[in-house]
Amino acid sequence: MAKYTSMEFLRFILFEVHHVETLFEYEKFSHLDSEQAWMIVESAKQLADQEMFPYFKILDENPASYDGKGGVKTHPQLKKIIQGAAAQSWIGGSAKFEHGGLQLPEMIFNTGHHIFQSANNSVQGYLGLSTGSADLINSFGNQLQIETYVPPIYEGRWQGTMALTEPQAGSSLSDISTSAKSTENGYYLVKGQKIFISGGQHEAVENFVHLTLARIEGAPAGVKGISLFIIPKYRPEKDGSLTYNDVYCAGDFQKMGQRGYATTHLSFGDNDDCRAYLVGEPHKGLSYMFQMMNGARISVGQCAASVAMAAFQSSLQYCLERPQGRSASEKDPTKSPTLIINHADVQRMLFTQKSIAEGSLSLAMECNKLYDQVNGSSGEVKENLLLLLELLTPIVKTYASEQGSRSASLAIQTLGGYGFTTDFPVQQHYRDLKIMSLYEGTTGIQSLDLLGRKVTMQNGKAIKLLMNSIENDLKSSLHFETLIPYCTTLSNELKRMERVLENLSRYLQKGEVERYLSDATVFMEMAGYIIIAWQWLKMASVSAEKISESDFKSNSQSFYKGKIHTMEFFFKYELPHAEACAKTLEDLHTLTNVKNQELFH
Amino acid sequence: MAKYTSMEFLRFILFEVHHVETLFEYEKFSHLDSEQAWMIVESAKQLADQEMFPYFKILDENPASYDGKGGVKTHPQLKKIIQGAAAQSWIGGSAKFEHGGLQLPEMIFNTGHHIFQSANNSVQGYLGLSTGSADLINSFGNQLQIETYVPPIYEGRWQGTMALTEPQAGSSLSDISTSAKSTENGYYLVKGQKIFISGGQHEAVENFVHLTLARIEGAPAGVKGISLFIIPKYRPEKDGSLTYNDVYCAGDFQKMGQRGYATTHLSFGDNDDCRAYLVGEPHKGLSYMFQMMNGARISVGQCAASVAMAAFQSSLQYCLERPQGRSASEKDPTKSPTLIINHADVQRMLFTQKSIAEGSLSLAMECNKLYDQVNGSSGEVKENLLLLLELLTPIVKTYASEQGSRSASLAIQTLGGYGFTTDFPVQQHYRDLKIMSLYEGTTGIQSLDLLGRKVTMQNGKAIKLLMNSIENDLKSSLHFETLIPYCTTLSNELKRMERVLENLSRYLQKGEVERYLSDATVFMEMAGYIIIAWQWLKMASVSAEKISESDFKSNSQSFYKGKIHTMEFFFKYELPHAEACAKTLEDLHTLTNVKNQELFH
Repeated sequence: MAKYTSMEFLRFILFEVHHVETLFEYEKFSHLDSEQAWMIVESAKQLADQEMFPYFKILDENPASYDGKGGVKTHPQLKKIIQGAAAQSWIGGSAKFEHGGLQLPEMIFNTGHHIFQSANNSVQGYLGLSTGSADLINSFGNQLQIETYVPPIYEGRWQGTMALTEPQAGSSLSDISTSAKSTENGYYLVKGQKIFISGGQHEAVENFVHLTLARIEGAPAGVKGISLFIIPKYRPEKDGSLTYNDVYCAGDFQKMGQRGYATTHLSFGDNDDCRAYLVGEPHKGLSYMFQMMNGARISVGQCAASVAMAAFQSSLQYCLERPQGRSASEKDPTKSPTLIINHADVQRMLFTQKSIAEGSLSLAMECNKLYDQVNGSSGEVKENLLLLLELLTPIVKTYASEQGSRSASLAIQTLGGYGFTTDFPVQQHYRDLKIMSLYEGTTGIQSLDLLGRKVTMQNGKAIKLLMNSIENDLKSSLHFETLIPYCTTLSNELKRMERVLENLSRYLQKGEVERYLSDATVFMEMAGYIIIAWQWLKMASVSAEKISESDFKSNSQSFYKGKIHTMEFFFKYELPHAEACAKTLEDLHTLTNVKNQELFH
Repeated sequence: MAKYTSMEFLRFILFEVHHVETLFEYEKFSHLDSEQAWMIVESAKQLADQEMFPYFKILDENPASYDGKGGVKTHPQLKKIIQGAAAQSWIGGSAKFEHGGLQLPEMIFNTGHHIFQSANNSVQGYLGLSTGSADLINSFGNQLQIETYVPPIYEGRWQGTMALTEPQAGSSLSDISTSAKSTENGYYLVKGQKIFISGGQHEAVENFVHLTLARIEGAPAGVKGISLFIIPKYRPEKDGSLTYNDVYCAGDFQKMGQRGYATTHLSFGDNDDCRAYLVGEPHKGLSYMFQMMNGARISVGQCAASVAMAAFQSSLQYCLERPQGRSASEKDPTKSPTLIINHADVQRMLFTQKSIAEGSLSLAMECNKLYDQVNGSSGEVKENLLLLLELLTPIVKTYASEQGSRSASLAIQTLGGYGFTTDFPVQQHYRDLKIMSLYEGTTGIQSLDLLGRKVTMQNGKAIKLLMNSIENDLKSSLHFETLIPYCTTLSNELKRMERVLENLSRYLQKGEVERYLSDATVFMEMAGYIIIAWQWLKMASVSAEKISESDFKSNSQSFYKGKIHTMEFFFKYELPHAEACAKTLEDLHTLTNVKNQELFH
């Protein structure tokens, strides 16, 4: 079977780089040990090998499609996948025991999901959405809501979704207009349109539970007037039967990628009978939703990294098998062609992909670990960990999706013309990946979040915590002489980033918020290079240690050398672009506040 | 109708930046004047509006497909398009009068083709291939060949193609194995397989003329033993009838983009009756083919620029119509949303697209002009112009295709989630564009050509000519005070490029060819930024002049201001990445000559 991820790499980042075993010291995870954790990951691989990966192309060729009367046709395999994953607890596995879960750390649970994402990213979304929706109900719902909705979601019988986007509002959540009218019976009556609702309708489940943002009549304008509701497609009656709840699927968007994943248009309350159940308090919906949203952002980043990983593995396999051309110094055309992996430019393309895919997966793992640590801690420690996680969330989401697309483009490029044909999966990876920079807040939105909110919160405390964390990691890298120059480079990049922030903050001090934020996306790009350089130095440091100790129990010496090599590659080929971004950011000329639209013509 | 290119911009680069009217002084083009030339361009626009653009999405949704028995089904509109274009001389228009053409400069002819490319890039390929094939016969064929094959191609009744690639050889033309056996009757019998033959079989013409590379039995190994043949699918008999010539279409590749464009697998001589007619002398096929190939490379570059232009125009239109969100300083959610074009990040995405699309179109026009000048000149002047053209050819091909994909990605991004759906054309532009970095030599091949051949030919004469040409343009920019800083920046970039080349050439002096070439693609990326900066400064200089003279006969003041603004944007946001490339190129650490394949795992 073709390789779509690397179990060796997963073992490396789980146990050697990010030390999942330290989590087992928390009471919450004390029922686990490393061996068990790895067995759980391996079970995900088996499931993906059998039920998901073989359907990667098939689902692309048989896209989810609207039937014209409220239904969305999906491939029959989807039901098998959802039920198989549910049976192995890949929907509810990270939930607490009391909610029916296995209390798995996100690190383990999401490593399983990484495997699904790289095997077949269209189907992993259905599972991930259910997990996130149920988590939201567990966190903020009442006991009845938890008991009613969570078990069937975890059993894979009901699909959870998040319903935010509206046609007229797009990314601007403050303009949400779906209305909720209070009734005497405790529920609300909802009316409105939601678009781009992933998994909002399909054939693999019996019911849908839409976690929906709506505005209670009379609520304040803007994001402060948004409430969170549970809206089932069929509402459960006391006797256990289901009654149609006036949630109509009005269409399914056709897309250039992730074609196996239904992207629906939902219409609530066309017949004024759509009952919605308030979650938590009124008007606090957005803050609740952000729990799911933040998880979803990390998950999208990880998914982008996973698809880039799958494309890299395909590309690598092709380069190891395809003979073509000769070295530049070989003039004799009667000599046999060489494998293309021996061409320098092909190696450049492979290492670029490897540095992006593995680098961003390592960052996703860093975030998963922080998530677990936050949940296992309390007090100031918890607060600091959370700040760091909040800072890294938009970065992992954006770096992985933007650079992941570039990585998949290089995967196509290594295959030459073949890469553009549907005979090979890399073009599907490329198409699928493009959605990642749009999901759960576009790159522009993530960048505003990073520079406008995350960098400035608590007087820049998060960025200081990040610097400390990196400086701390640098210390262990400094033990290896060959790594010292890279430590210096990274240290200088951090100083440059600080200087850039200092310069930018002058606009803020002058009240020029818009100018401060105008190049947020360029700042994001710069931060991405630096953060991934940090991850690579971390991986190189561990590898240098393994080599110096001749500890090759888990992985071979070549494996570790490959990590150090890729780190060096990233520093030579990718990191210099951080300085280019800094140059743009420090250029005082403002060019993106044009009032005269004619200038664009 | 939606806009897919800008006639204002075409008029600007044709008449004001690259001065097509100077060509009319050559005898070859003396039958033309500016007014006529522009009328010809406008006729292309009308044709594209009526027959091509309305079928852009339709052809994507009804891809060329193999019928299982030698035929490729194509949309019926294709015939109308080819015949319509032929009737207006858009196949043979650039040929000499004696060959049945209109003796149009490439500048005019290719401006027409730019319009077709931006309207519907899948169909322009059929036309462009026919033009190139007939040109090749005109240049190197004998009188009988010209009389037999060229007229039906120009009339749109026969399709010309280029048949180079073989399954086992890919980009490595020295490994071509299709064999040609000489016969007593003057023709050769050919046997072999060719893949990725664009337009190699479809329903819109009566016959196909494959310009094919094959190896005459006993020929030397490698590229020095390749000959060029005309191989018709149906060979014309003396009485004018057509006999099947044993050319069988064995399949049609399904692709992620350009789905309306047939990409065939051809099998020659399955029944040992495939007659081939030698063009020119034996064993010189590759050098002949390179005439067509060089033209095709410029054309692919221009096509990439054109598709990026179409995506930009779609994106701009959306941004001018879509209200969403508010400015960062506007806290009142009851205020109406603003048009998204007023958001800084959206402006950044639009100007990035504009700078890439228009910048590379201007470079394509520079190449078209050089082509015309070469054909109109003689002696040393001609030789120098040709050197310059040869140097710029891989750059326009690569910059436009690589950055064009990035540009189309930003077009999707401006539309948010909608951009990923098939309801909007930008995702098709993105898919279509990806092939451009693979056609006619991948980015890796172009980069080897640039650094390995073009930069070194005649002791670096081409690069000196380029520097002179740029320095010359800088002189006129220096008249405008506001442009002086940009002249200085560009001048410094040129110096940096010279220094990088000097450093790289040390490897060459030491005989380390492979090391010299190992980062050719990074050098290409750097050169691309600098060359496009040159084009922008050229456009800004003309614009500054128009503004200073208040000469707004052709275009508005805002139009010219927009050009200067976009130049400034390119220098702030894009050009700094040239320095990052230089840093990589000057890093002495060699990382892409790995022998141990385990390092990739």
